[in-house]
Amino acid sequence: MSTRSTAAPADQLTVRRSNLSLVLTHLRDAGPRSRARVAADTGLNKATVSSLVAELIERGLVREGDVQRIGSVGRPGLMVELAASTVVGVGLEVNADFVDVTALDLTHGVVLSERTAADMRALGEQGGIGLLTDCLRSALDALVAAGCTVVGITVAVPALVDSRLGRIAIAPNLGWSDCPIGPLLTEATRGHPAFGAAAEVPVMVDNDANLGAIAEHAVGVGRDVDDLVYLAGEVGVGCGVVVDGELVRGATGFTGEIGHAPLNPRLDRCGCGRVGCWETQVGLGVLLTGCAHGPDDVLLDPETDIDGRLAVVRQRAAAEDERTCATLERVGIALGLGASVLVNIVNPRVLVLGGYFALLAPLLRGYVVDTLLERVVAPDGGGVDVRASTFGFAAASRGGAVVALQEVFADPTRVAGTTAG
Amino acid sequence: MSTRSTAAPADQLTVRRSNLSLVLTHLRDAGPRSRARVAADTGLNKATVSSLVAELIERGLVREGDVQRIGSVGRPGLMVELAASTVVGVGLEVNADFVDVTALDLTHGVVLSERTAADMRALGEQGGIGLLTDCLRSALDALVAAGCTVVGITVAVPALVDSRLGRIAIAPNLGWSDCPIGPLLTEATRGHPAFGAAAEVPVMVDNDANLGAIAEHAVGVGRDVDDLVYLAGEVGVGCGVVVDGELVRGATGFTGEIGHAPLNPRLDRCGCGRVGCWETQVGLGVLLTGCAHGPDDVLLDPETDIDGRLAVVRQRAAAEDERTCATLERVGIALGLGASVLVNIVNPRVLVLGGYFALLAPLLRGYVVDTLLERVVAPDGGGVDVRASTFGFAAASRGGAVVALQEVFADPTRVAGTTAG
Repeated sequence: MSTRSTAAPADQLTVRRSNLSLVLTHLRDAGPRSRARVAADTGLNKATVSSLVAELIERGLVREGDVQRIGSVGRPGLMVELAASTVVGVGLEVNADFVDVTALDLTHGVVLSERTAADMRALGEQGGIGLLTDCLRSALDALVAAGCTVVGITVAVPALVDSRLGRIAIAPNLGWSDCPIGPLLTEATRGHPAFGAAAEVPVMVDNDANLGAIAEHAVGVGRDVDDLVYLAGEVGVGCGVVVDGELVRGATGFTGEIGHAPLNPRLDRCGCGRVGCWETQVGLGVLLTGCAHGPDDVLLDPETDIDGRLAVVRQRAAAEDERTCATLERVGIALGLGASVLVNIVNPRVLVLGGYFALLAPLLRGYVVDTLLERVVAPDGGGVDVRASTFGFAAASRGGAVVALQEVFADPTRVAGTTAG
Repeated sequence: MSTRSTAAPADQLTVRRSNLSLVLTHLRDAGPRSRARVAADTGLNKATVSSLVAELIERGLVREGDVQRIGSVGRPGLMVELAASTVVGVGLEVNADFVDVTALDLTHGVVLSERTAADMRALGEQGGIGLLTDCLRSALDALVAAGCTVVGITVAVPALVDSRLGRIAIAPNLGWSDCPIGPLLTEATRGHPAFGAAAEVPVMVDNDANLGAIAEHAVGVGRDVDDLVYLAGEVGVGCGVVVDGELVRGATGFTGEIGHAPLNPRLDRCGCGRVGCWETQVGLGVLLTGCAHGPDDVLLDPETDIDGRLAVVRQRAAAEDERTCATLERVGIALGLGASVLVNIVNPRVLVLGGYFALLAPLLRGYVVDTLLERVVAPDGGGVDVRASTFGFAAASRGGAVVALQEVFADPTRVAGTTAG
């Protein structure tokens, strides 16, 4: 980079940052390659690429790999590639039944995945934030032990979120409202050694269904398409809508609230206080209550991990338990009815069943597909492909980790170097 | 433009076309100005701009206007501006009750607006196409008499549309299906003098709610925002969704079918054959039947223009007619319930009431707003502003004309010049 005093330093930094982003993102999307190849691919000159790669290595984002021989003549080039497992983004999800933490490296490989069962509603807001902090700190400790540096944290919440301020506006199924969860977690982790040379990592906040949709589109079952709807089946039910490759965020950030569409003609009371909301027919609580044989049934025990309880549902379905089969049919049809509203409005290529819908997908998918074919006006359901998430309840935390890493790809200088910091 | 033989002619043409588009679109968005100003604004050199403007004038898209004096020194520049009323796009709408034709000039000024009342369902597909053709030919004749050249035609239909082939897949409220309406109208108007030097103008086809949304966003009550939902209240009810300034078209082009969301707990039979569709609560037929005093009521006469019938509804509401007031309350609340589904999912800045909803907006809007505030999860309805379209039943045909003109702005060479053709 030129150091002529006539060029404004601010502009130089902007160009440098943009070029660092270009090279790092190119290595992610195109894979390992020589510096000469990066120069040829990006149109940057070789000296600039060498300098950029040196800085990315110094920041721990890129490393030198194997020697690449192209043909039999010419000088072999040393390959450079993303530093797979030292720089990580962290996603954290709080939901009614659990806290989940996922850490992904720059290549989106899973470095850490932990879930803690908890009755968050019973814990209350203060107790809940306390548990979240414990889970996050414990994950950060483990990442330090594994030699990782954490470059970003995003927390997923089943809530209306003001992302700009990192605040929960209202989370009906947690019973929390007007909670500055982002700033609280930022403060609680300040100075943690997992952040390397950085004093703190600002904790971003987003809606769980939004982050689930981002995860499915970036690294999940929807990565081959640009138009998808992700349905998050938890105690509450929300959706994330991706149109032309971009998440629909709406005019004020409050999208995806299909769970409160007035689709239940029985007008059951919802956790939000309204009546007739769709999630009173398809939420996790309704499913578990429907399948349970009595108030002491293990399905209703909030201390038992939700994966385990859903395994019991699958066992009972396999054994043709009458209550379980009838509930699955009722929930599956209602799920298809609500899904048909989304498919009729936005005509996605793929509908991803997430959360508990994914874990029971073999039992629910048939009802959903049949109902879509019946209720969607376009021929063949508009061609929608109903797929089960492979992330289960970890989709939102995985999406949080993806978003945390996106910040680094957009601006690699956010990661302090070993000497620069 | 250079004519060196080393440059590929195809590339030269592409660059030329792109620059013609740039200048024409700039004159639309920025208003009349001198050639020198256009050069300064666009970064093109003055000689190129002069040549481009000469070609646009020759094609009838631009004309020379007044002399512009900037300050008191320097040579005054002759202003150039869009040729307002000679080059027009035509939008045609067929709906259950009427055919509407709108012609707009390049500045989006209305050159022609005609509606013909008709019972399209009774006419059948062949009779309907015949009436459409008559209406279109009559409009083209009038445009020739007014000295206009028609550069594009778009027909709006209350249907699932395969836009690529110009076919209606299925139009439940017309009773038409698998109808190549675009090619049929293209053929029926081939060689019309309204097309100037062109032998034909291919007739494009799109869904009526999509075109209504485009009209509101381009030239209507939603032109100040980039996130809006347009609700088309006709015999059927559909919506068009604009996100970040772009219409959501979906994976296979079948969006906006909110009318068939299963929101009616009474499970009334819909025109589409399903039960419980939202439009069985809020469609125009339901409103008119609800307000009518008997089977011979003027409200139910398909030969009476729909604006006239809705004027009767407004008169009866003003006179506090019991049936009318009860129906308006029932329809208004149901309208708000369905609208809340859309607002909860896509969180628009503006919700536009179109079609008959617009013509009865003073009577319906209060119920809609109250229901939105009750059912939308985000505080204050997510900030949505409920506005009535000012285009009434002509929104879709107006959107059709806008789309027809867009093709010209994208490629001005589509319009043959007076000598080039």
